[in-house]
Amino acid sequence: MPSTPEPSLRFIIVGGVAAGASAAAPARRLDERATITVIERGPDVSFANCGLPYFLGGEIKQRDALAIQTPQTLKTLLNLDVRTNTEVVAIDRAAKRVEVRNLAYGTNEWMPYDLLLLAPGAVPIRPRLPGIDDPRILTLRSLQDMDRIKVAAAAAQRVAIIGAGFIGLEMAEQLTRLGKSVTLVEQLDQVLPPLDRLMTRLIEDELHRHKVELILSDGLTGFETTGAEIRCRLASGREIVTDSVVLSIGVRPDTALAKAAGLSLGARGHIRVNEFMQTSDPAIYAAGDAVEIEDLVSHEAVAVPLGGPANRQGRLAADHIFRPAGSVRAYPGSLGTAIVRVFDVAAGLTGWTEKRLRAAGRAYRTVTVNDNDHASYFPGAKPILLKLLWDPGTGRVLGAQVVGLGGVDKRIDVIATAITGELTIDDLAELELAYAPSFGAAKDIVNLAGFAACNTRDGLVIPVDALPDNPAVQVLDVRPPPLVQAYPIPHAGVINIPLAQLRSRWGELDRARPVVTVCALGKTAYFAARILAQNGFHVYSLTGGIRAHFDPRSPAKLPTT
Amino acid sequence: MPSTPEPSLRFIIVGGVAAGASAAAPARRLDERATITVIERGPDVSFANCGLPYFLGGEIKQRDALAIQTPQTLKTLLNLDVRTNTEVVAIDRAAKRVEVRNLAYGTNEWMPYDLLLLAPGAVPIRPRLPGIDDPRILTLRSLQDMDRIKVAAAAAQRVAIIGAGFIGLEMAEQLTRLGKSVTLVEQLDQVLPPLDRLMTRLIEDELHRHKVELILSDGLTGFETTGAEIRCRLASGREIVTDSVVLSIGVRPDTALAKAAGLSLGARGHIRVNEFMQTSDPAIYAAGDAVEIEDLVSHEAVAVPLGGPANRQGRLAADHIFRPAGSVRAYPGSLGTAIVRVFDVAAGLTGWTEKRLRAAGRAYRTVTVNDNDHASYFPGAKPILLKLLWDPGTGRVLGAQVVGLGGVDKRIDVIATAITGELTIDDLAELELAYAPSFGAAKDIVNLAGFAACNTRDGLVIPVDALPDNPAVQVLDVRPPPLVQAYPIPHAGVINIPLAQLRSRWGELDRARPVVTVCALGKTAYFAARILAQNGFHVYSLTGGIRAHFDPRSPAKLPTT
Repeated sequence: MPSTPEPSLRFIIVGGVAAGASAAAPARRLDERATITVIERGPDVSFANCGLPYFLGGEIKQRDALAIQTPQTLKTLLNLDVRTNTEVVAIDRAAKRVEVRNLAYGTNEWMPYDLLLLAPGAVPIRPRLPGIDDPRILTLRSLQDMDRIKVAAAAAQRVAIIGAGFIGLEMAEQLTRLGKSVTLVEQLDQVLPPLDRLMTRLIEDELHRHKVELILSDGLTGFETTGAEIRCRLASGREIVTDSVVLSIGVRPDTALAKAAGLSLGARGHIRVNEFMQTSDPAIYAAGDAVEIEDLVSHEAVAVPLGGPANRQGRLAADHIFRPAGSVRAYPGSLGTAIVRVFDVAAGLTGWTEKRLRAAGRAYRTVTVNDNDHASYFPGAKPILLKLLWDPGTGRVLGAQVVGLGGVDKRIDVIATAITGELTIDDLAELELAYAPSFGAAKDIVNLAGFAACNTRDGLVIPVDALPDNPAVQVLDVRPPPLVQAYPIPHAGVINIPLAQLRSRWGELDRARPVVTVCALGKTAYFAARILAQNGFHVYSLTGGIRAHFDPRSPAKLPTT
Repeated sequence: MPSTPEPSLRFIIVGGVAAGASAAAPARRLDERATITVIERGPDVSFANCGLPYFLGGEIKQRDALAIQTPQTLKTLLNLDVRTNTEVVAIDRAAKRVEVRNLAYGTNEWMPYDLLLLAPGAVPIRPRLPGIDDPRILTLRSLQDMDRIKVAAAAAQRVAIIGAGFIGLEMAEQLTRLGKSVTLVEQLDQVLPPLDRLMTRLIEDELHRHKVELILSDGLTGFETTGAEIRCRLASGREIVTDSVVLSIGVRPDTALAKAAGLSLGARGHIRVNEFMQTSDPAIYAAGDAVEIEDLVSHEAVAVPLGGPANRQGRLAADHIFRPAGSVRAYPGSLGTAIVRVFDVAAGLTGWTEKRLRAAGRAYRTVTVNDNDHASYFPGAKPILLKLLWDPGTGRVLGAQVVGLGGVDKRIDVIATAITGELTIDDLAELELAYAPSFGAAKDIVNLAGFAACNTRDGLVIPVDALPDNPAVQVLDVRPPPLVQAYPIPHAGVINIPLAQLRSRWGELDRARPVVTVCALGKTAYFAARILAQNGFHVYSLTGGIRAHFDPRSPAKLPTT
């Protein structure tokens, strides 16, 4: 007959969503005998937080689909003691015990632990602004928040979303899908602030196409909430009159408990952990949105409030506790790989952006390339734009951003893997990726980015990321004249010599003055730059072409009639 | 006024399709003054060979779309001397000249070169079998071959395709799309011979669903072609009566010219090149399907007749010729990354397969994991199956195969990049890939494969890739009974204890006898194995579950009603 094994280690996990649940499952698989308790303040464990916006818009139809596990399934499959609607209110580190309050009954008890994992997550920021306490000003963190927004949206015709980051964009899409009139407000001069600004053009265009009113460079100063309407006051003096407000201006780590327990916190209040997710108290681990971890590229302390890292950190904490000492690899750091879908457009990033590199004062170089997600000759090819950043000393890839109508996730993942493998721009040029006409190209855009980067490093081309203000510089548009007429460059004094005529017509240019070559996508401008450079010109080429700089939908050629 | 630059280096390229065209373009960008001549036996240059099957089935509608460049566009944009319908019939290496025959006029001339690139490609194999010379027995290499098959298919009701490799599968799909009754014959016991057999189950199933008649383990012995019908005779004695035959049993390098010139050839007749694509004569380069290059994993000489490598090799040859000495990186070797779409299924591979590792006598370990292409809670999630192979000594990834209904290309590309970066199974477990519900999962299948591999290496699980014949071994199915009844395992004496009851019921098993745990996808079988192992059992787990081994469409759970 089976006998109940003796209890051994007592492991308490505070927070049962991403990092917490990701620790509990491998912990049990490593140790059948441990007493594993999961304490969750809310009513749900292990739910799909990244799915919440999609239930709002009805793209995810079943609310149950978001509950990946329930307290009952965790008990049944993993023999966990799961306590929901229960809060840890204090940690007594000396006695290794936590004070636990049952929120339903208001009762408190002390529970002893051998090891503790804090996975409290992060809470949406609610700035102390006038009128902020109106219950119609909502944020999204839990299933209950989602339900509240769903109810509010059902009654609303107009919704204002404050903050155009990942969650703000996803909610803008989903609420538009519900037929709401959506206004999206962002304090910065671009949507999706983690990206470099030029890479967000296509998203802005996509929002406009779907009638989302986008207000950039304007911050929220307060609300006036008399009557049925809510008036959002902006720094510019503008007011947005709406029926419902969702705040998505970022999150802050939920670390009151850690702070009260005297654990070491980072500069912005995150829990400090070592490479095995141990806090300043080695009996207390922490993981997920509340911690500060090492950036894989810069090795600086960063907070990456994303689901993937939270899952891996939770798992690592469990491994470090339950696997043999010395057998567990240190946390490799985070890349901040992320992606968002905005209607038909996807945008993603991994590693460093230009703005981060610039702010950190690090040397970098960059190119931006256009291509299609698969062979252009095969039906359904969709445009994508890729910006690559690399270290000029080592050639190592530092980061990338990709935006487009298809295949964005694949390129982000390939480059995230390349950064992990410390690959260089030469390696990207030669990566052997899968090619069949419906899936890729003999030269994938990742290869093209590698080619362009190598050509830049080798001095074959000098990319510029803006047209010159200086009238002494000649701007040469090498597109065919019909395309030039249909999609003119918004710049004075542009000279047009189509690439096909450049060898016989470069004499029309002044070799004493610099030239910047321009084309639709950036490729033929490079070809032109090579012709001119070999004929004695001092020449630059606009990286990413007209599509990256002026019009994210401008075509490479006119449709054949 | 522009003056014509003085001619400098004379560079002749023999073959103007993938490798040849990929050499000509960068050559010109590196050297405006070189005389670059492209000599092509056929009427077309730089056409999309990988697109040919898709024009047959009408998925690519415009034949022109397959002509990426024409002789005229190459002349205009790159100032190349392009000679189509022209054949190089001899190389005079001592005098550095080639004899060129104009096939239209039958005239010959000698052309001097400073450097030569051979990019002759490969020709479809046509075995010397009885009846092979019937003009209705076709192969696919050029646009003209494609036209002939298109005409033949239009007149045919039945088409037999001999050889179920990449091209054979693509043609089977496209001809089925045209409404033809397709019979696909393969000498081996599986479709897509480069893959391990278990990974081809879903493709076979997909062919059956689309009414393709699939004949495996039967070789062609000859044709009888009296009257309108063609009879394909197979080794088993079986005859296939058809209206049209397409042979797609592989290619051989087109190296008669290289051989006649006395260049060094490999064991199977490919042109030997060094790491800069130079043949045994350093003034003669070779690239593409006709050459033998180094395998990136094994460092052995291999032939990889694929578009991506051909493009990179052509480019490398041009770089080595026209860039400064010492500035060009050696060819990094090929991974053999490839992918094919067969109706709604995709299958791909990169690096080594188990059959290659076994044949080479190399140590390896392997796991097979099931998952969906994106978060299962988000609509449209499609199943994929991933087989990972790694080196037990170093943990380095050696290869992977992926088959499924979505996201196959992404995982192949990620693992190809991981192999290039010499990543280990630990690295795969921790790769930070892009996650939003429509694009991925907090734990991508690549991460899951890494977890499973690490668990295997660390002895947490012993995966087996078949159920035991030995009746002393207990086979434990841990699925819920309704699923067991709906999708029984074709194996005698299987015990069913659902995972949720295993902690209270493992006493029903005999601890003195080994156990193999089984489930739908392989995941809960692992969970069960952990419970049993910690309770003193000697336990194995069937990797990849029932879906990988018995029924590629078997569900993880029954639909809720």
